[in-house]
Amino acid sequence: MNILLTNDDGIFAEGIYAIYTELKKIGQVTVVAPDSERSSVGHGITLSHPIWYKKVRRKGKFFGYGISGTPADCVKFAIGVILKRKPDVVVSGINLGPNDGCSVFYSGTVAGAREGALLGIPSVAVSLATFINPDFSYAAQCGARLAGIARQCHIPRGTFLNVNVPNLKVSQIKGIKITRQGTVPIHGSFRKRRDPNLRDYYWMTGRMPLKGKRDDRIDSYALHNHYVAVTPIRSDLTDYASLDVLDDSLLKVF
Amino acid sequence: MNILLTNDDGIFAEGIYAIYTELKKIGQVTVVAPDSERSSVGHGITLSHPIWYKKVRRKGKFFGYGISGTPADCVKFAIGVILKRKPDVVVSGINLGPNDGCSVFYSGTVAGAREGALLGIPSVAVSLATFINPDFSYAAQCGARLAGIARQCHIPRGTFLNVNVPNLKVSQIKGIKITRQGTVPIHGSFRKRRDPNLRDYYWMTGRMPLKGKRDDRIDSYALHNHYVAVTPIRSDLTDYASLDVLDDSLLKVF
Repeated sequence: MNILLTNDDGIFAEGIYAIYTELKKIGQVTVVAPDSERSSVGHGITLSHPIWYKKVRRKGKFFGYGISGTPADCVKFAIGVILKRKPDVVVSGINLGPNDGCSVFYSGTVAGAREGALLGIPSVAVSLATFINPDFSYAAQCGARLAGIARQCHIPRGTFLNVNVPNLKVSQIKGIKITRQGTVPIHGSFRKRRDPNLRDYYWMTGRMPLKGKRDDRIDSYALHNHYVAVTPIRSDLTDYASLDVLDDSLLKVF
Repeated sequence: MNILLTNDDGIFAEGIYAIYTELKKIGQVTVVAPDSERSSVGHGITLSHPIWYKKVRRKGKFFGYGISGTPADCVKFAIGVILKRKPDVVVSGINLGPNDGCSVFYSGTVAGAREGALLGIPSVAVSLATFINPDFSYAAQCGARLAGIARQCHIPRGTFLNVNVPNLKVSQIKGIKITRQGTVPIHGSFRKRRDPNLRDYYWMTGRMPLKGKRDDRIDSYALHNHYVAVTPIRSDLTDYASLDVLDDSLLKVF
């Protein structure tokens, strides 16, 4: 199995190394990841600047290719420039921090997997639900097994797996749930500061409240309740249920 | 009607001015847009840098607020800092260039409308399908009317309208179609160059081939065949059809 591995925390992050070690046990791994952190870049791509790459060593050995772009760039660049043929699986992560609910729009890690899926490759995004004291070991094992499942199971072209793992010991994890993406919005709030030249500036902060139906079938709740949450994410965003509603509304106006 | 207007081509772009003029006829318009071009930033947001804003004048009058961030930042910033209350509608555009098919993932303009939709506000992204010799006049009229429709029609919270307008005279436009998002991937290819220090770098280019079913119900074809394409885009990305498939696959492995 040829595996393409990327992330958004950058090629020197701890999380990508952890899952690299596990993926090496089941296949050939090519690491093509941003040369520094690209968190919250969403599915952005680099069209207005050129892209550079350099070979990166970790722990004294060749590790992979560091790219001056986003995770989505990395997947395109890997397939367009570095790899001789399409990989069998794309894995993105392990992200430091959860990517449940509406984070699927903001996350570069999720976009890395989505880019793989758009190109018809089975793909998995893996995130660890903590920003402090991460223990990537179970997430790495779990992510590697799910990469195998993504390749074998019959989900449609364009659909990929978004995996969120609680930062707990294996014995504390209750199991795995196939989940729905939560839809509670992350409300941005802004902290005002003043710079040395007396100009105001703002820091965005955001928080995703756990509200609505407290239902383990939703990613955020499953995660909160110590389950690994695995959400199949689609790439056809058409809201089919609204097509007729809109047809009727338009007929009245145009 | 209170309208929040953003885009990804930046607050000084021609397209945003064109639709501003039309939207002023039907409501109060607040312009909160990137201070320079932010094309292809997807749904990225700015968490690692602070955000600044400045008041911008165009044609001798106050026009709006220029933000040092992405279109999604602009919508969050407008609601969190600038506006006293949530707008009735968010409009994003008019983008120079089409945003049909898989462009919905890469486009900052589409993300501006999606951010509005995530926050529960009826939202519309408007794009003009050309990069050269744009005539924004019909797209501006059409976008303004669809902003009204988005507010009145009964589409679910989280769903927004992605509008693509051909760059043609009104007399050449055949009408409006409610469409599905095309799913043919944009394949990136990379042009290699060498810098003065003899280092290689790469420019990404991409092309979305018109292939698959030639069906006017798909945005790219409707646009190609001289229709305005209006696609309802959802924010719950769960692939519900894959939930059971995955449950079965997991049972075998975990």
